[in-house]
Amino acid sequence: MKRGFGSDNHSGISPEIMEAITSANVEHALAYGDDEYCKQTEQLFQQVFGSQAKVYFVFNGTGANVLNIDAMCRSHHAVVCAETAHINVDECGAPQRIVSCRLLTVPTPDGKLTPALVKTQLHGFGFEHHSQPRAISITQPTELGTLYTLDEIRALADLAHSHDMFLHMDGARLANAAVALGCTFKQMTTDCGVDCLSFGGTKNGMLMGESAVILNPALDVDLKYRRKQMAQLCSKMRFMAAQFEAYISTGVWQRNAEHSNRMAQLLFQSLQEVPEAKVVYPVQANSVFVQLPNPVWNALLDDYFFYLWDEATDVVRWMCSFDTTEEDIHNLIKALKKRLQEYKA
Amino acid sequence: MKRGFGSDNHSGISPEIMEAITSANVEHALAYGDDEYCKQTEQLFQQVFGSQAKVYFVFNGTGANVLNIDAMCRSHHAVVCAETAHINVDECGAPQRIVSCRLLTVPTPDGKLTPALVKTQLHGFGFEHHSQPRAISITQPTELGTLYTLDEIRALADLAHSHDMFLHMDGARLANAAVALGCTFKQMTTDCGVDCLSFGGTKNGMLMGESAVILNPALDVDLKYRRKQMAQLCSKMRFMAAQFEAYISTGVWQRNAEHSNRMAQLLFQSLQEVPEAKVVYPVQANSVFVQLPNPVWNALLDDYFFYLWDEATDVVRWMCSFDTTEEDIHNLIKALKKRLQEYKA
Amino acid sequence: MKRGFGSDNHSGISPEIMEAITSANVEHALAYGDDEYCKQTEQLFQQVFGSQAKVYFVFNGTGANVLNIDAMCRSHHAVVCAETAHINVDECGAPQRIVSCRLLTVPTPDGKLTPALVKTQLHGFGFEHHSQPRAISITQPTELGTLYTLDEIRALADLAHSHDMFLHMDGARLANAAVALGCTFKQMTTDCGVDCLSFGGTKNGMLMGESAVILNPALDVDLKYRRKQMAQLCSKMRFMAAQFEAYISTGVWQRNAEHSNRMAQLLFQSLQEVPEAKVVYPVQANSVFVQLPNPVWNALLDDYFFYLWDEATDVVRWMCSFDTTEEDIHNLIKALKKRLQEYKA
Amino acid sequence: MKRGFGSDNHSGISPEIMEAITSANVEHALAYGDDEYCKQTEQLFQQVFGSQAKVYFVFNGTGANVLNIDAMCRSHHAVVCAETAHINVDECGAPQRIVSCRLLTVPTPDGKLTPALVKTQLHGFGFEHHSQPRAISITQPTELGTLYTLDEIRALADLAHSHDMFLHMDGARLANAAVALGCTFKQMTTDCGVDCLSFGGTKNGMLMGESAVILNPALDVDLKYRRKQMAQLCSKMRFMAAQFEAYISTGVWQRNAEHSNRMAQLLFQSLQEVPEAKVVYPVQANSVFVQLPNPVWNALLDDYFFYLWDEATDVVRWMCSFDTTEEDIHNLIKALKKRLQEYKA
Repeated sequence: MKRGFGSDNHSGISPEIMEAITSANVEHALAYGDDEYCKQTEQLFQQVFGSQAKVYFVFNGTGANVLNIDAMCRSHHAVVCAETAHINVDECGAPQRIVSCRLLTVPTPDGKLTPALVKTQLHGFGFEHHSQPRAISITQPTELGTLYTLDEIRALADLAHSHDMFLHMDGARLANAAVALGCTFKQMTTDCGVDCLSFGGTKNGMLMGESAVILNPALDVDLKYRRKQMAQLCSKMRFMAAQFEAYISTGVWQRNAEHSNRMAQLLFQSLQEVPEAKVVYPVQANSVFVQLPNPVWNALLDDYFFYLWDEATDVVRWMCSFDTTEEDIHNLIKALKKRLQEYKA
Repeated sequence: MKRGFGSDNHSGISPEIMEAITSANVEHALAYGDDEYCKQTEQLFQQVFGSQAKVYFVFNGTGANVLNIDAMCRSHHAVVCAETAHINVDECGAPQRIVSCRLLTVPTPDGKLTPALVKTQLHGFGFEHHSQPRAISITQPTELGTLYTLDEIRALADLAHSHDMFLHMDGARLANAAVALGCTFKQMTTDCGVDCLSFGGTKNGMLMGESAVILNPALDVDLKYRRKQMAQLCSKMRFMAAQFEAYISTGVWQRNAEHSNRMAQLLFQSLQEVPEAKVVYPVQANSVFVQLPNPVWNALLDDYFFYLWDEATDVVRWMCSFDTTEEDIHNLIKALKKRLQEYKA
Repeated sequence: MKRGFGSDNHSGISPEIMEAITSANVEHALAYGDDEYCKQTEQLFQQVFGSQAKVYFVFNGTGANVLNIDAMCRSHHAVVCAETAHINVDECGAPQRIVSCRLLTVPTPDGKLTPALVKTQLHGFGFEHHSQPRAISITQPTELGTLYTLDEIRALADLAHSHDMFLHMDGARLANAAVALGCTFKQMTTDCGVDCLSFGGTKNGMLMGESAVILNPALDVDLKYRRKQMAQLCSKMRFMAAQFEAYISTGVWQRNAEHSNRMAQLLFQSLQEVPEAKVVYPVQANSVFVQLPNPVWNALLDDYFFYLWDEATDVVRWMCSFDTTEEDIHNLIKALKKRLQEYKA
Repeated sequence: MKRGFGSDNHSGISPEIMEAITSANVEHALAYGDDEYCKQTEQLFQQVFGSQAKVYFVFNGTGANVLNIDAMCRSHHAVVCAETAHINVDECGAPQRIVSCRLLTVPTPDGKLTPALVKTQLHGFGFEHHSQPRAISITQPTELGTLYTLDEIRALADLAHSHDMFLHMDGARLANAAVALGCTFKQMTTDCGVDCLSFGGTKNGMLMGESAVILNPALDVDLKYRRKQMAQLCSKMRFMAAQFEAYISTGVWQRNAEHSNRMAQLLFQSLQEVPEAKVVYPVQANSVFVQLPNPVWNALLDDYFFYLWDEATDVVRWMCSFDTTEEDIHNLIKALKKRLQEYKA
């Protein structure tokens, strides 16, 4: 397949990660997380997220999100999230099926919840006819490529805690947020009061590696059973732990994320020369959302695979990856200009 | 960790499989199964299982089992299975949670269902107070290392179909069964009337690779949505497909399974010199179940990790893997003899 | 408790219904719906809704709604409904827990869906990351006391069917709609293309009686098992059937609904003398939604129990019941005027 | 329908209960349990079961059982019960669907669990592959008409508590047990360490009335929300409370249960004259299980409706009700003798 901007999971495995897999492929190791690789990597997570952090490796982001929601909620609870949240629009109803709870969605201008937006859903407490608001879920960076500042995260955590609720962060691309904000993972999560985190690596160079990181020990109740019951317990888990170990300890998370963010900035800059292409959200991580004339993005789909994000407004999404090159960007811009010329002709 | 006999998923990745992962790690590929690796491997599955077969790659055996059960059943249905079935005792209630249906369990002498045993559960049809029997699920080879003959499988399929029910086969170790019976995968499944199959590779040399193979097209309804909803949709699926492609096309499935079966036979033979160790089930695949004096297996746990299978009867399970060596077997026998001497002393 | 306008289920049992219960209380009858009362009443439902109608008696409106949703949907499906729909805001997540599906909610000005509003949710068909739209659910009369015309219902049914979807009608107060529109139940449901109906009697004079009426035979698959599994199968069902039989055959449904609608009109008229009380939705059935100065409705709560409908806009709901009297209305208006005077003083 | 012995829910409503419904049918009452009838009856339950008891009225026995199981368990838990338990064989998988947990069933000679039988399921604690045993559920009297003594109940409660588990009692016919044992409800439940109780009235003269009684306050967490979510919240709840109030305060529970138990004894005695009819379980409550020649019970089904209990052994169940008469018994015996004569002829 041609290289492109369809998604950051269209790229492959970073060399450092592949090396870790190869290195772990010696002799026997206990299955299901009882091996030395897992134990070491669990300790590493505690160094990164604080000594109270408890990590549960799972297969994918949906698995991490539902395990975290299951940690926070029973079926009569509800999770407040942005209308554009991955848990709402991209998991085919996994939270409803696996946790059997409700999502209370809020329209947002830029994919970001605010205390004011969340408060529109904070009512009906104690009224048995209403699902009880129990958690706030935010995505960092958001599905629209925007970022919460540390203060904004803290404000949502405070709001949650003042209502006996929890704050969940979906961090499928957390590395991109950390390098963009210039902060550590801990500063952006534990220190802001985040209660649990979906921490992903797949979109940033891993073969497959996601995790539910429980930062509030009060939520760490019986999760190992429910991870198993949700079919999220990996047998040869050493290969997942080894990837995460390399991801963190070699700094590849940072190098890869810095690169894909920089490529997104380059793409954003390059688009300044193309007045017909309107960038519709701030470019703060590794994605660029662009509004184009309908026939143009349609024609461009012959050159590249990418997602039409909003049919109504002709907005498309272009993702940069750890292996996106400057040449890739130039080629895209070239193709775009060509399609625009055809369109105008 | 010391090499041992705890499980066939304590071993690592076969070289052929690792090579396939490395080879697939080039350029971009569409995510979620829309790539060329997946398309090719899907065709390969049709060559192996018949042109009507449809494969859904999933993360683990539990995922494959629940997706298959979900294909056969709604919540008011029941699956008849052996009391010792993995879906009953080793998945922490995944079928109940994810499919919300019932399992109707039958005690068996050797892990194998028979038409007579199944019939004890075939009643209450049409009576709304009773979960309706809808499927029979068998494991091949069984959790006790025993095998169904092709005739036995066919008889269960016929029984199922005569009651408007389906036959599911849990084939987490299907390769071991195929080499033991000297038949093809298709002869053991499609040709016997199996409606859906959990076909696994992880226990036989893959990093991670399981699949739900729908053999009866009537069951192939909307499963892609429910795989996603169950959090079993892999993003970088090319790496799963590439493993399966190598698994099948290089014949590593066969070489590995022949080896682990042979090692189990060697272990079985070697145990003939140890009269205190009673092998309690026929050794037909790659596991050996041994009854030992309680203090002996307890002491042996200091030498090796393995599972106590039945506390009440002091039966332990020893699994052979694709990388088990003759030396491993000799070392185990040596250690066992030493522990027996200490015990008798 | 003082008489009031809190809900139409604050009233008791109509004499005709009580008489039916008493009359059915003779000798023995088979349980779980196999008795003569149920058989007769099932036939009566076919006279009312058409010969293909199949009725399932259940305990309450939530039970009827979830059984109907379960008839239309599997877990990966979604139901499009108004944001204000009872299934969305007043069932504490029952559809999510029992059917495990999603609701796709649409803001509406008056509680009514339109084809244009529904279409905003009709996308993502065939895309496995999205819950698949499978049903439209409307409430007749709506939770805001407004009515769909027959043409409006038909348009939604046509829209649903053109997308291989179904139309569900929540008719907890269907009698109030029928008398307001001057049509039969069948004209408003079967003849408009409604596929399944929650038909209630409790709010209009029954002790307890709700039903899921399947109008599209394609949906009538295995529902008796799932009604039982959902804990909605009544043992002494003759007493539910007898109520429905009397409800329909004595015309009490009509008399009661005409009365409560008329009382709502009287209340509406009377409120014309109270300029500070703004009626915010058309009064088309038996409820009146009134915007009042915050201190006024607060004070009035000392006189009457009623629900604050919208905290943000100070709108309260007043329901009329089959036993509401003209004197009740006059007393309410008197109390309201008194509270307004105090407020202005 | 002809009077018979099919079930104790084939009978109607006791006069005392009907009177209570009629009396409660005055004026308005708040819905959903906030009325005076409910408050009074809740206090009455505390007088009966102890001051810590908290009652949740629900629609039927299945509703009571699943709410209680939901109070004790999350999805990864398991409930140990007799193979013959109503929750296992007669609820079409309601616990699996609504609570998503597992049942661990134990074969018993007489429908009664014992500590020894329960212990066969008490293993795998802490092992994430196994559903965690969390509760023991017993039925009193059992589905086979047998009784637990107070000491037997206490022993099971002690066993449960020593494993951090709970004891649930399904008391759909609790009144029959109380009069048979000559004890109070409290002595048989709270005082024995029962943690939660399904307390039924429908089978003993109510129109409809079941309840989940939480005796261990630690279990009383958020149940009002989950009762609503399970579609078990009655709107005109005053009519359920009024029934229970009359049931308890007028002593009708006792009179009715004494009568039906006495009728069962009369039936049992009368069967002594019929040597071909073998009573297979001790007659301790209001049911009699009789083994008959296959053609005899088949022919007798033309005279009476009753349930074949065990096809394999030709055992039928005859239930006595609060309105069973001595004449009913004599007629049954007469019919039985006639069918036996025909059979022998």
